[in-house]
Amino acid sequence: LIEYKLLIDAPDNKGLMYKILGVLLEHNISIDKNDEFVDIENNKFFMRTEFNSDISRDIILDNLNSKLNDTSINIKLIEKKKKNIIVMATKEAHVLGELLIRHYDGKLDANILAVISNYDDLRSLVEKFDIPYFNIEANNLNRTDHEKLVLDKLDEFNFDYIVLAKYMRILTPTFVEAYNHKIINIHHSFLPAFIGANPYKQAFNRGVKIIGATAHFVTNDLDEGPIIYQDITNVNHTHNWKDMQKAGQDIEKIVLAKALNLALEDRIFIYGNKTITF
Amino acid sequence: LIEYKLLIDAPDNKGLMYKILGVLLEHNISIDKNDEFVDIENNKFFMRTEFNSDISRDIILDNLNSKLNDTSINIKLIEKKKKNIIVMATKEAHVLGELLIRHYDGKLDANILAVISNYDDLRSLVEKFDIPYFNIEANNLNRTDHEKLVLDKLDEFNFDYIVLAKYMRILTPTFVEAYNHKIINIHHSFLPAFIGANPYKQAFNRGVKIIGATAHFVTNDLDEGPIIYQDITNVNHTHNWKDMQKAGQDIEKIVLAKALNLALEDRIFIYGNKTITF
Amino acid sequence: LIEYKLLIDAPDNKGLMYKILGVLLEHNISIDKNDEFVDIENNKFFMRTEFNSDISRDIILDNLNSKLNDTSINIKLIEKKKKNIIVMATKEAHVLGELLIRHYDGKLDANILAVISNYDDLRSLVEKFDIPYFNIEANNLNRTDHEKLVLDKLDEFNFDYIVLAKYMRILTPTFVEAYNHKIINIHHSFLPAFIGANPYKQAFNRGVKIIGATAHFVTNDLDEGPIIYQDITNVNHTHNWKDMQKAGQDIEKIVLAKALNLALEDRIFIYGNKTITF
Amino acid sequence: LIEYKLLIDAPDNKGLMYKILGVLLEHNISIDKNDEFVDIENNKFFMRTEFNSDISRDIILDNLNSKLNDTSINIKLIEKKKKNIIVMATKEAHVLGELLIRHYDGKLDANILAVISNYDDLRSLVEKFDIPYFNIEANNLNRTDHEKLVLDKLDEFNFDYIVLAKYMRILTPTFVEAYNHKIINIHHSFLPAFIGANPYKQAFNRGVKIIGATAHFVTNDLDEGPIIYQDITNVNHTHNWKDMQKAGQDIEKIVLAKALNLALEDRIFIYGNKTITF
Repeated sequence: LIEYKLLIDAPDNKGLMYKILGVLLEHNISIDKNDEFVDIENNKFFMRTEFNSDISRDIILDNLNSKLNDTSINIKLIEKKKKNIIVMATKEAHVLGELLIRHYDGKLDANILAVISNYDDLRSLVEKFDIPYFNIEANNLNRTDHEKLVLDKLDEFNFDYIVLAKYMRILTPTFVEAYNHKIINIHHSFLPAFIGANPYKQAFNRGVKIIGATAHFVTNDLDEGPIIYQDITNVNHTHNWKDMQKAGQDIEKIVLAKALNLALEDRIFIYGNKTITF
Repeated sequence: LIEYKLLIDAPDNKGLMYKILGVLLEHNISIDKNDEFVDIENNKFFMRTEFNSDISRDIILDNLNSKLNDTSINIKLIEKKKKNIIVMATKEAHVLGELLIRHYDGKLDANILAVISNYDDLRSLVEKFDIPYFNIEANNLNRTDHEKLVLDKLDEFNFDYIVLAKYMRILTPTFVEAYNHKIINIHHSFLPAFIGANPYKQAFNRGVKIIGATAHFVTNDLDEGPIIYQDITNVNHTHNWKDMQKAGQDIEKIVLAKALNLALEDRIFIYGNKTITF
Repeated sequence: LIEYKLLIDAPDNKGLMYKILGVLLEHNISIDKNDEFVDIENNKFFMRTEFNSDISRDIILDNLNSKLNDTSINIKLIEKKKKNIIVMATKEAHVLGELLIRHYDGKLDANILAVISNYDDLRSLVEKFDIPYFNIEANNLNRTDHEKLVLDKLDEFNFDYIVLAKYMRILTPTFVEAYNHKIINIHHSFLPAFIGANPYKQAFNRGVKIIGATAHFVTNDLDEGPIIYQDITNVNHTHNWKDMQKAGQDIEKIVLAKALNLALEDRIFIYGNKTITF
Repeated sequence: LIEYKLLIDAPDNKGLMYKILGVLLEHNISIDKNDEFVDIENNKFFMRTEFNSDISRDIILDNLNSKLNDTSINIKLIEKKKKNIIVMATKEAHVLGELLIRHYDGKLDANILAVISNYDDLRSLVEKFDIPYFNIEANNLNRTDHEKLVLDKLDEFNFDYIVLAKYMRILTPTFVEAYNHKIINIHHSFLPAFIGANPYKQAFNRGVKIIGATAHFVTNDLDEGPIIYQDITNVNHTHNWKDMQKAGQDIEKIVLAKALNLALEDRIFIYGNKTITF
């Protein structure tokens, strides 16, 4: 039996769901889990269905395409298999470490093909887990030249997502466009608060009573991409910005890990600048 | 246009959803919102669908019954209309007050037909809002005799739910059976912790660092009914049990109000000793 | 016995606490609760102490002043008594209703002297609780002229705090300066996100997964004043902005009530653009 | 300069704090952080003070003892130094992995001297971090004999705390008494709910809407020891018990790590069956 996930988004249409179920029924498919969302204002339909079948992906997909027969309908039929990811990091170990431990522990349904960093600090941690580590230093290079080296390295791999585990360099539009909707970042604030550098210092200076973290897809507008998941923790006047950072790091790593799991389980639709997460 | 909610639970069956959608399609119905859940282990299917139609309830329901044609399938087709509730309370004003303000403010999609209490303390609050208040004192009465008076009073009204807004008397099986799955209670702990009397004192004595509240349907087993909603707040060593109570009361009232809204919007399936809340 | 709260802030100084305790000991005072905070970076000391004594405020305060004898030390010795507040609102009932119910229920340690609104919508609610309601309409008035009327009305009362319970008009610097550090506002977002108008629409458009509310003192910079308390709740793709508003309103009212309680219990130091809350 | 923490608990006494500060002042000590709590009902005083000084621990402590001069006063003066811990685990990697990563990353202010397990599963993870791993199997041994082997192994080390990172064996009173108030456990429920085995199955069967984790000191009564820290996460009807476990594991590891940090920073007073955590 093959485990399938069927993701469909389309203009909303009275008979659409009925037709989709009709096709699945033709193949004698029983649905294990089904989620739907209709954006009524914009007349947009989203559906994610899990089922098992011994029928091949091509047969089911061909049948769906021929019965639905409408180019405005996006159909993705995904066979369950372990996805591949590349992790990019800089110097901080907590988010990367979280991914490595989950990977080791079988809690991350992905292969970590490589870790790329602009420093060498994290090499010993990564190599403990027998994962290739590439230090691509940015010293003396302009942004474009450094990114060229990173892009060349990425070209050596076949992966589904790039995970920015506190990668502290801004990506150029070229880079982002090359991996559109494939780059997941963790930002250390509850966006849209504290965009940009040093969010914990910003939070401390503003005197907030909560801090947070936001996992989002990366788009050209810094810290403006579709949000996947957010969480917060309480702080108070006894926290200086270093204490806020310490408290926030526990949130950062869990938020990123949860967002990544949603992506790995094909639970996310990107819809304009937002996400629908089933 | 009539606003409908269709709630179906049934043994899971490959073609079931398809058949249901087929009937709706026959009536040219467009679905606004659809939630499903399949308990795979127990082969049980739950569906809640929202739609608008100018076709009468009888026609749609007859068609569903005839097409589905299986007595193991439970079909509820509900026309949107304001539900009626009776609130029962004792002496504490915070949960009752929350309901009264929401009712006044149009945030509670229900008519409060009456408030019944075993004391007279809350009369002035209730009567401010021009809602009938019945003080049915328990003095010198045994439990059965007191409940008889309450049941007689309830018989005067036609209501959908009884809401126990800190009603501090235990209900007999007779009472509970008379209104099976129609009584919603707020218990002032995160059940199943601190069943029974004085949960805040229990919590204080145990030295917990969180306290909470639980809204649940009332069944014969005290504090054992299906849980609808729960929430918590943090406490620490500086809280004595009175401080815990004070902190907890904010949780109690919001938890009950949210659970009640779920009931009023027909979002709850009771399934064994649990709830499915869409 | 008089219940006292002693609040002292001063440049940090090795012997300061010892001296303060020495004075209290002279008067045979036993401390019930003591909180301290030292901002080491800025060398600033904050202390809040609760005690009971039958000695008069003047005697203790004179002794403190003479022993500490330093104009850079701010000493407030507060006798416990019910504070007076004025509530200002516009049309929304939920925050005001929360305050009215708490006031009725003895959970708000304050007298609500009056409610002032720029509309008449909330009159019937307020008058149920026998609290004076003043509708000061802004129609055909410029901001200054309208505020003049409000300021004149405020002059009739002797109060400790103005509580903005969803008062939807911007206050001028004149107004804010007149009641510096005495105006508490509830903003319907987790500041500094979504400053300004329609934060729920802003939140919806940004696609956030959490929404929140912030209680703060009002300063001339809109939504920039010292934050007292914040809380959040989770939202998702099924929430349109109206749903976010509905979910957020439960947070708004509790956050404001908690912040107000901190103020009423003299638990807040305003320190630059931040608060220290004991 | 030596970093000190001074922890004092004593019967509450009017002049006590004054005397303590007097001693510190004699040594020209400036206080960086001071927390106090008075349990008024039981007339008990707790104080934790942080300061730096170049005066030796013996001198300060002798002076405190001679000035306070009362055997009912417990005085602990602790020089900051890295504490030593032993971690005990069984087969699950997530809590242990959290500790190992924090240890590696300098976020755990302790040396992990060894990991002891009743299985060999976690050896490869632990040895990556060059920490000794001892597999003391329980096969064919009764509880006492197995514990004897563990106790013998523990005797080889000089440590401050034993951390049970999902060690799934019950400890005998002999073991617990040998390390009274030195064993910290993580229980996978929000205690006192779901004491004993399989709390996630219990939670699933009860149909709760929140699950949690509790870090506590181990006493002879299983899962009844003083609670240090608790946290929760939301679940719903779509979570089977395995999903609850998966969601709960993120809470477990963070809760244990936070509780352990409180212990390592000497922030905990054990007070009867409760903790005071500053």
